Amino acid sequence: MHHPSVNQTNRLFAPQLNVSPRLLLGPGPSNAHPRVLQALSMRQVGHLDPEFLQIMNDNQVLLRYAWQTDNKFTIPVSGTGSAAMEATLANGVERGDVVLIGLNGYFGHRLVDMAQRYGAEVRTMMRPWGEVFTLDEIRAGLAEHRPKILALVHAETSTGACQPLEGVAELCHQYGTLLLVDSVTSLGGVPLFLDAWGVDMAYSGSQKCLSCPPGIAPLTFNERAMDKIMNRASQVPNWYLDMTMLGRYWGNERTYHHTAPINMNYGLREALRLVAEEGLAERWARHRATAELFWEGLASMGLSCHVAAEHRLPSLTTVRVPEGVDSKAVVVALRERYNIEIAGGLGELAGKVWRIGLMGFNSRAENVVLLLAALKEVLK
Amino acid sequence: MHHPSVNQTNRLFAPQLNVSPRLLLGPGPSNAHPRVLQALSMRQVGHLDPEFLQIMNDNQVLLRYAWQTDNKFTIPVSGTGSAAMEATLANGVERGDVVLIGLNGYFGHRLVDMAQRYGAEVRTMMRPWGEVFTLDEIRAGLAEHRPKILALVHAETSTGACQPLEGVAELCHQYGTLLLVDSVTSLGGVPLFLDAWGVDMAYSGSQKCLSCPPGIAPLTFNERAMDKIMNRASQVPNWYLDMTMLGRYWGNERTYHHTAPINMNYGLREALRLVAEEGLAERWARHRATAELFWEGLASMGLSCHVAAEHRLPSLTTVRVPEGVDSKAVVVALRERYNIEIAGGLGELAGKVWRIGLMGFNSRAENVVLLLAALKEVLK
Repeated sequence: MHHPSVNQTNRLFAPQLNVSPRLLLGPGPSNAHPRVLQALSMRQVGHLDPEFLQIMNDNQVLLRYAWQTDNKFTIPVSGTGSAAMEATLANGVERGDVVLIGLNGYFGHRLVDMAQRYGAEVRTMMRPWGEVFTLDEIRAGLAEHRPKILALVHAETSTGACQPLEGVAELCHQYGTLLLVDSVTSLGGVPLFLDAWGVDMAYSGSQKCLSCPPGIAPLTFNERAMDKIMNRASQVPNWYLDMTMLGRYWGNERTYHHTAPINMNYGLREALRLVAEEGLAERWARHRATAELFWEGLASMGLSCHVAAEHRLPSLTTVRVPEGVDSKAVVVALRERYNIEIAGGLGELAGKVWRIGLMGFNSRAENVVLLLAALKEVLK
Repeated sequence: MHHPSVNQTNRLFAPQLNVSPRLLLGPGPSNAHPRVLQALSMRQVGHLDPEFLQIMNDNQVLLRYAWQTDNKFTIPVSGTGSAAMEATLANGVERGDVVLIGLNGYFGHRLVDMAQRYGAEVRTMMRPWGEVFTLDEIRAGLAEHRPKILALVHAETSTGACQPLEGVAELCHQYGTLLLVDSVTSLGGVPLFLDAWGVDMAYSGSQKCLSCPPGIAPLTFNERAMDKIMNRASQVPNWYLDMTMLGRYWGNERTYHHTAPINMNYGLREALRLVAEEGLAERWARHRATAELFWEGLASMGLSCHVAAEHRLPSLTTVRVPEGVDSKAVVVALRERYNIEIAGGLGELAGKVWRIGLMGFNSRAENVVLLLAALKEVLK
């Protein structure tokens, strides 16, 4: 065989990897715990090796603990949080299903976009960004739309609001509706009791309160949800996220579907071990205490939070940008002068708030003190 | 708020992560290069941090080198190889498009499954597992089916056959057909000249000849493919893999789509730096030399290869299981006695062959010598 000669145009001799020591206090990723980074670099075994199957089992059990569920179908999806989000809809929705979505932030809009792609007849309930839905509003929405699925965002990363979930599933089940919950910014940092609260489907990310890098994403379905999925009239229109096939790899059959992201599973296991070691109640209390320290500091600086105190997420705070301050310039200055990452607002809140995360390993008093001091300097 | 008390049932106190030192000589993953594992554990920066944007740029340039293409749209997908595979079809196929697929192994069947989910009218060309298609057969298939897309597997991981690609695109373009190529087990190990050969769409994996763990997957489209994608009449029916949106994150706009798998991008960059350092021609030659050493050793043991010498992949060899030998028992013995992973056959070749990979970092003479010696012991 005669081959062309190798074109050297794109043969980049890039320097060895090096990045600045950022403190990631934006909406995510948060800094991974050092033990998680170390686990990531463990040598590999194959994705069907008995030792890897044990790691998969560990991850399933540990995810159940973190989510407070006994759901058999609890797995990490081989992608980032959005892949797990799409997996709930790709599997849960059949063409023509009415899906009711709570729209009070950016990620509600993403749910609408995804659900439409899977043929859902999407209905929405609206609240201003930063507010939450009451049980009465939810009851009215269910009664009006009689949806197959109600999707709510437990922790809205775009607004900092925490949607109360107690009592929601009881209402849903009266109408034969499945409750789907986005817990990307709550899992491992904010009280969440999937089984006690009756949640049917949930997804999350690894890079928020679990302090594992992005690239693997928790997903869980209870029996009610699995019944709907296993009795679909049509095939799941997404191969990579088809849980009827993936369930046979994570279940007893261990049938090859796709190669699992081995090292990301290592990292997730270490992140979840840290949750189990600390204890959920203790971890939630730590997130709350750190957030309250931060909120007090903000108040003493004359800065105010966008979300009412009773619905504020401990993991993610939206801080109102004071009149006359260039929000973007503050983000850049914190990064360039102090290696601190925070983020601006998204969508309706663009330019109006900063989004500041105190998640997982980063939820510590020293980070609060540093951020407040740096913010003071930058706002001078 | 009154919460239920935390259920401790699934609070697993799992031991610190530890795995056996496996030598991964199966069909993938291969062992990651130590420098790649080290890069994986680098501290994180945010997915919109200017330093991360530079890393994304590096990965795009380095992927172009590895693939020998100047395609602007060249990115790593945030999933494993199957996600990139699905991305080519989710974006490239519109409902009713005729897609012609070469079926001569397991991954051709996967392409059929995926293409159907996106509404393709799938036609197939068949060859026995382990054989390849001639230009005449391809011309006849194109003339008969006049497909929008022809999909061929360059390196069939299930059979060990290498599909020659010279001249295929010229035929395709005569029929207005786009050429889609699976290069999962060839990128970085087997001669591949996307631009010189006129390939329009290609995908790969990270965990084969690139020696990066699975969890990130190269994808590239040329201008002809992008024209089809950007002029779709319908929306891409898959949100996570929608390249019309993702292109704005990887392009100049840097619009947030989903959080990129930061650390997997670190790992891929290091893997691709290693390709650039070694040089593609040298790397291909190394894979070929290691494979030939292995093939000679097999012959001297009286073992035969399933694929004819001229179509044999240097990265993946299918070895015929001798009469009377329990193929599975050999796989288990190699793992349990010598920490060596090889795999059995898949699909039509189940029980008939072993699949042995000498990929990337693992493509070294010492691994050949060790494997042959261990195989000799186990076959005694």
